[in-house]
Amino acid sequence: LPERAANWEEELLTQGLSRRALRVGVAYAGPGSGNDIQRSGTPPIAFTGGIPDPITLPIEELAAASETVLRREGALALEYGGAQGFAGLRDWLAGHWTPIDRTPLTGANFSLTVGSAHALENVCETLLDEDDLVLVESPSFPGSIRAIRSMGCRVEAVYVDQDGLNVDAFEERLRAAEREGRRVKLLYTIPNYHNPTGTTLSLERRHRLLDLCERHNVLIIEDDAYGEIGFEAALPQSLYSLAAGRGVVKIGTFSKTIATGLRTGWIQAAPALINATLATRFDMGLSPFLLRTIAEYASGGRFEAHVEDICALYRRKRGIMLDGLRERCSQLASWQEPQGGFFLWLELADAVDYARLRLYAEEEGVAFGGGPGFFAAGDAGNGAIEPSRFVRLAFSYTAEAEITEGVRRLARALERAAQSE
Amino acid sequence: LPERAANWEEELLTQGLSRRALRVGVAYAGPGSGNDIQRSGTPPIAFTGGIPDPITLPIEELAAASETVLRREGALALEYGGAQGFAGLRDWLAGHWTPIDRTPLTGANFSLTVGSAHALENVCETLLDEDDLVLVESPSFPGSIRAIRSMGCRVEAVYVDQDGLNVDAFEERLRAAEREGRRVKLLYTIPNYHNPTGTTLSLERRHRLLDLCERHNVLIIEDDAYGEIGFEAALPQSLYSLAAGRGVVKIGTFSKTIATGLRTGWIQAAPALINATLATRFDMGLSPFLLRTIAEYASGGRFEAHVEDICALYRRKRGIMLDGLRERCSQLASWQEPQGGFFLWLELADAVDYARLRLYAEEEGVAFGGGPGFFAAGDAGNGAIEPSRFVRLAFSYTAEAEITEGVRRLARALERAAQSE
Repeated sequence: LPERAANWEEELLTQGLSRRALRVGVAYAGPGSGNDIQRSGTPPIAFTGGIPDPITLPIEELAAASETVLRREGALALEYGGAQGFAGLRDWLAGHWTPIDRTPLTGANFSLTVGSAHALENVCETLLDEDDLVLVESPSFPGSIRAIRSMGCRVEAVYVDQDGLNVDAFEERLRAAEREGRRVKLLYTIPNYHNPTGTTLSLERRHRLLDLCERHNVLIIEDDAYGEIGFEAALPQSLYSLAAGRGVVKIGTFSKTIATGLRTGWIQAAPALINATLATRFDMGLSPFLLRTIAEYASGGRFEAHVEDICALYRRKRGIMLDGLRERCSQLASWQEPQGGFFLWLELADAVDYARLRLYAEEEGVAFGGGPGFFAAGDAGNGAIEPSRFVRLAFSYTAEAEITEGVRRLARALERAAQSE
Repeated sequence: LPERAANWEEELLTQGLSRRALRVGVAYAGPGSGNDIQRSGTPPIAFTGGIPDPITLPIEELAAASETVLRREGALALEYGGAQGFAGLRDWLAGHWTPIDRTPLTGANFSLTVGSAHALENVCETLLDEDDLVLVESPSFPGSIRAIRSMGCRVEAVYVDQDGLNVDAFEERLRAAEREGRRVKLLYTIPNYHNPTGTTLSLERRHRLLDLCERHNVLIIEDDAYGEIGFEAALPQSLYSLAAGRGVVKIGTFSKTIATGLRTGWIQAAPALINATLATRFDMGLSPFLLRTIAEYASGGRFEAHVEDICALYRRKRGIMLDGLRERCSQLASWQEPQGGFFLWLELADAVDYARLRLYAEEEGVAFGGGPGFFAAGDAGNGAIEPSRFVRLAFSYTAEAEITEGVRRLARALERAAQSE
């Protein structure tokens, strides 16, 4: 018999990859990939991943819920449950979001996915082809940009300022596309407690954005991963809510409110669009055991009480980080107070050299998300933005008692990176 | 403000779907979709889905494992675990498959997926483009054909006979492609206890198949969903094993051995190819809670003992079904004794009218998988095959005590469908 060479896969991988695989290159390994938490050696104080504080993880409650579900529901929890996912959890989502989004929702408006990452992927696979034109924000969550880019569509970026997506710049992009005879098919936006900037899209901008998207027939994907983690006044109504669900697909997740390790998120959309996304997935749905466990845990007001608790915690943690920054870093960086979410976005003073900052931060024992990673979408049309002038600090994961020391280390790294010029 | 029409999504869905979404049409709703088990009204005796007998589901053990994992591992189980999935479960798979596949395997040879359905999808997305030529078996599992077709590649079918894939016909297809100047990129095959026919590819054919695929540079996807459910002599070595992993990707699942509702399967391949599949997924991996629960349950020989138990049960159930068929149906259908798996594939006698059989089966209260659903891949090059001459009977799900009554009902339906000519 002939036999393939021991390095047969080299040929396959150099000549046989799909265009989609070639586009994405290597696997995502940034914040939130599971690679960002160092578990051996002397770990730095990590302001990296958008991950809940481990003390908030409802371990006992989830253990009780999983046991209840298995003992009470047995086979129902351990057999195929369909691609859309357990109806009881979708009904719970409908009940939870109907008053918030002031729109009558039912379980038919939801589909359950492997986190909001899979929700975005599923929507993209349902609607996008190569060469479609998609607008995204810059900066943005790089995992999302990677998924959108993998479809082979043309991705153009619009910048985010202190009130969220700059809608003037968005309108300019729409008009530029129109002049070229091209249609913008889709906008991907994170209007609430934006990742990485922490900004929130103002109500006035939401109205203008919906108006523009309606006139230009642009579908909006509204990524609301962080919207429930609020510290101050209520958020402006969601885009989904303002549009009564027309022309908006919202994606959400339990990753930030309960646990990233549940890997459970959802698509919220008109039922006809939900059905189209279901037709364009092939995984036969998520585990009913997992989904029923989440529904059991979330029921009876437990989820809402939990979210109230964690918001109080993250508000405190944000305050500790802001106090430290004001005390030690105000000459070396500037920032905006986020009204919710997990992140503070620092703009470095001109004196701070970015490469040195990374080096000194490692030496001092503090980790953060480097700005350049969040500008994957490329030029956002405001030439003033230099990615290496920014770092993202997550105040969510690090223990409350360690934040001040982490900021102290960051301050030393900033000082050294400024002095070394 | 202008406002989108209430039926905005109609326009989106008629003019805005991706080519992939347009190809697949509606969602899969066949056996195993979660739609096939009727749970209200007077249920028929169901020989439909390839689903484990509910009495085999290790409910107590999984409840204990999930509790252990959450209490012992806490945050590790509830945080991101990476796209490849919990290393402990991948290591367990390596330990389990190394002796069976007689090939040294490590955790780097595995990636964990949402069942083998997602495994297939992930491999296809990594390797296939529109217009690539893919060969599949006919009949085959329609969910797999649907996923492959969604990539837009040209799918051609090769027929399965009593010894599995007909390798002569496969060779003919390869030569026909060669004459057209086209290369066959990939073969999707179910060599063990084939779905739906129950046949097993002979060792001699495995050697010939590997030889042909090597000479023509065809990658093999070996779907081994049922290989562990064996009743008789050991299976021939896997294609993966015979090829020492070169040019073969194996996909597997816990759906048939533990529970479909775990929605956990895997890709087994060379590490470089595993890495390529990881780069071409966007879901940030499955739930570490779920994967660690499975690893905890499977460890310490529990999985192997469980498989031994279920094989004994399914062997008995197959025997009961065969006894009933021999006693009541031998004039109206013929079949081959499956050596493992969940299915018996009946070829109907000429006298039996298929449409009437479906009608009478419903009246008699028995359900089965209709032949035509398994011929989604189209003409397999053997004109003698008429899809509506076949039905698939799953002996796995229905309670042992009900199988005889189910066959009795089927026999009555067959008799009525034959007499009514």
